[in-house]
Parts: sequence; structure tokens; C-alpha cells
Amino acid sequence: MRLSILLFDGFTALDVVGGYEVLANVPGMTLEFAAARPGPVAADSGALGLMATLSYADLHATDLLYVPGGPGVQAALQDSALLACIERVSPASSWTIGICNGVLLLGAAGLLRGRRVTTNYFAREQARAFGAEVLPERFVHDGRLLTGAGVSSSVDTALYLAGQLGGTTLARTIQLGIEYYPAPPFGNGTPDGQAQALKDVVAQVERTAAQRLAARHIPF
Amino acid sequence: MRLSILLFDGFTALDVVGGYEVLANVPGMTLEFAAARPGPVAADSGALGLMATLSYADLHATDLLYVPGGPGVQAALQDSALLACIERVSPASSWTIGICNGVLLLGAAGLLRGRRVTTNYFAREQARAFGAEVLPERFVHDGRLLTGAGVSSSVDTALYLAGQLGGTTLARTIQLGIEYYPAPPFGNGTPDGQAQALKDVVAQVERTAAQRLAARHIPF
Repeated sequence: MRLSILLFDGFTALDVVGGYEVLANVPGMTLEFAAARPGPVAADSGALGLMATLSYADLHATDLLYVPGGPGVQAALQDSALLACIERVSPASSWTIGICNGVLLLGAAGLLRGRRVTTNYFAREQARAFGAEVLPERFVHDGRLLTGAGVSSSVDTALYLAGQLGGTTLARTIQLGIEYYPAPPFGNGTPDGQAQALKDVVAQVERTAAQRLAARHIPF
Repeated sequence: MRLSILLFDGFTALDVVGGYEVLANVPGMTLEFAAARPGPVAADSGALGLMATLSYADLHATDLLYVPGGPGVQAALQDSALLACIERVSPASSWTIGICNGVLLLGAAGLLRGRRVTTNYFAREQARAFGAEVLPERFVHDGRLLTGAGVSSSVDTALYLAGQLGGTTLARTIQLGIEYYPAPPFGNGTPDGQAQALKDVVAQVERTAAQRLAARHIPF
């Protein structure tokens, strides 16, 4: 089984690696990272670079198509090569996985009309504009489409997928392998349940994302 | 404030990125990845490559020294340049962070004698052999030393550190930014509380780690 993860400038690393770490442990899985061109792709921080080994244009078919999010999504929504890749590869894939606001890229590729999805809580309106029914869930499974909420939801989403691919015992074994027994030191909850003051700070960070991406120093 | 993350062949990506994603969002943080040499470093899967931008030898001082784990640790325990880097940089750092069996590298650098730590559950005996008192906790803070259990514990550990660095409100804001409201689809628990059959599978994977690393195809 083949997992193809799409990268783009300004992706969020945990959107990728949370799901990767689970799915890489599914027996028989082969993995690849595709981007505009092979080579390092800079995450939103600019300091972290992940290697792509093939270009969007060279990705023609896969089993699991995985699209992460990040502040770079807003620019990626205009990337015709990226969107064409999703449009080309998704229909014949077994699963298409969107994480965080990466779900919007699935929308721009025409995959969300009439579909139930989740996404990062601040991307819900944009997802609805692509015709999706947006649920405030950690992950949502609708047919061959599996979507996760923000960033760290990639772990829960991929564990659910591991269970679908290989059963509960496999998923629990991977959970043990990555010791995923989370214990958030300041409590758990939902994004909707957080204090407005925190939401305001995160919203401000989101509003200034384009400036922060442009100001990054990328050392590779 | 400067965060320096050490990479080595066969590291586990979520050990790195779980903590990175939290700490990269601490205001004023600068980040860097050090390895034997600059360039891509292959994770345990072989398919994921993270860019290092400086060599161990060029890392002389930092604020936060961060050492991940992975199946590559067993070989890294013999890497004199890596251990010398930890020995040189840790004493003047504000915090030294060890995740998963990366804690063993701190032990090999002489940092664990008489210290309270946690580590991946299957690395506890090796950590004790370095003179540590090993607690079966998600993370353990002992002076300037902060250690996390396996892989995904890096998120909880780094959120705790964010709280120490900037207070609870900052940590909760970052938690919202990465939507860390975990909901493991097959339940939570502890590694010790899992079925022996699952532990046996993970132990077998661990025992064959060296062969799996040697057999990897690394495409970069």
C-alpha cells in the first residue's frame, strides 16, 4: 500500500508527521512526499525542511493521498499544479485524507461538494464555501474521504484509518508503538470550548500568517 | 531564545516534530537542526528526511537542547561527535530535553547519574544502567532536565515546557493553535496498561530495529 503526502511551502509539520508516524507503521506501507519539485520544502516556521522526492506532476496514482494544512494553504489554493495533482490522483485512490485547513485544498480541487468533513476550527467557513457540511469533530469519515481537525488531530485521524485498514488490534499496536496515551498538561477540551482571549490570539496569528511566511529565513 | 534539535540517522520523526511544533510557537524562539553534517537526515522509515543546517561540531551553545529518540539511538550511542556535542552544550543550556529513548543519549553523555527521568517504556532498564531513577510518567522535570516518554509524549512534554517558559496562558494558546485536544479513537491508557500481546509485537519490532534500519531505501 502506498501513502503519498503532498507538501507545499508553509505547511505545518505536525499536520504531516502526526499522520505519517501512524501510517508508516502499517505493515507493507510505502511512503513518499511530493511537492512542486524534489528537494527540501520549508514548513511554516522556515526552520524545518522536509524532503520531497517527487514532483506533483510525477504523482499519477496512489492508495492513500494525504494533504496537510498550514498557513501556506492560502497561497497553495492558487497552485494549479498542486490542485491538478489532487484532482488527478484522488478519484482512483482508496482514501483521500485532508488534515487541518489542508481540507480547503480538497475543496479547491472540487472534492467537497455535498461531503461531510471537519477542518481546523478557523477554516470552517471556507470549507462550507466549497460546498461541504462541516462538523466540529476530531475527524470525519465520509466514504473514501477522511478529514481531521487542526494539526495534532492528524494522529487521531490516522489511528482511525489504521483501524480501517488493518483492524483495531493493529491500530492499538501502533498506538503503543508511538506511546500515544496523551496527557495534555493544561487539560483537554475542544477548540470551541476555549476562552475567547485565546481564540483572539490565535486568530491574530492566523491573520498575519502571510506576512510571517514572507519574513521567514529559510536556511536550506 | 534558541532551540537546537539534534538529528541522527534513524530518528523517529514524531519525537522531533511533536515538541518542535509546540516550541516553534513560543514567541521569540529561533530553531535549528544539527546532525553529523548539514543536509537531509533519514528518519527510521527511510522515507522521511529532515534537513539539518549545522553539524554537531558547529553547535557550541544553546538555550534549549532537544534530543529525540528512535531506533537509530542504539547506533547513535556509539557516535562520539553526537555525545561530545551533548556533553559540551548541555551544561550551559537552560534546559536539556530528552524524548523517548533519546534519553539514553543523555545517559551516554553522563547526564543521568542520580537524576529522575522518564523514557520510552522499553528503554527503562537501559536508562537505569546510566544511573537514573526512572519513573513511569508522561514527562519528568528534574532541575534543568526535562524528559518525555515515547514518541508522541513530545507534545505533552513541550507544552509543559512552554508553560515553564511563558506561563499557562501561553501554553494554552499554543495548545489551541495546534488543536491539541486529543481523542484517541481506541481509548487512552498507559503503555504499562496495554495487553501483553501488543507489547510482544512492539518488542519484536524493537528487537529487529537494526535490521530494518539497514534494509531501508533512502531516496535522498
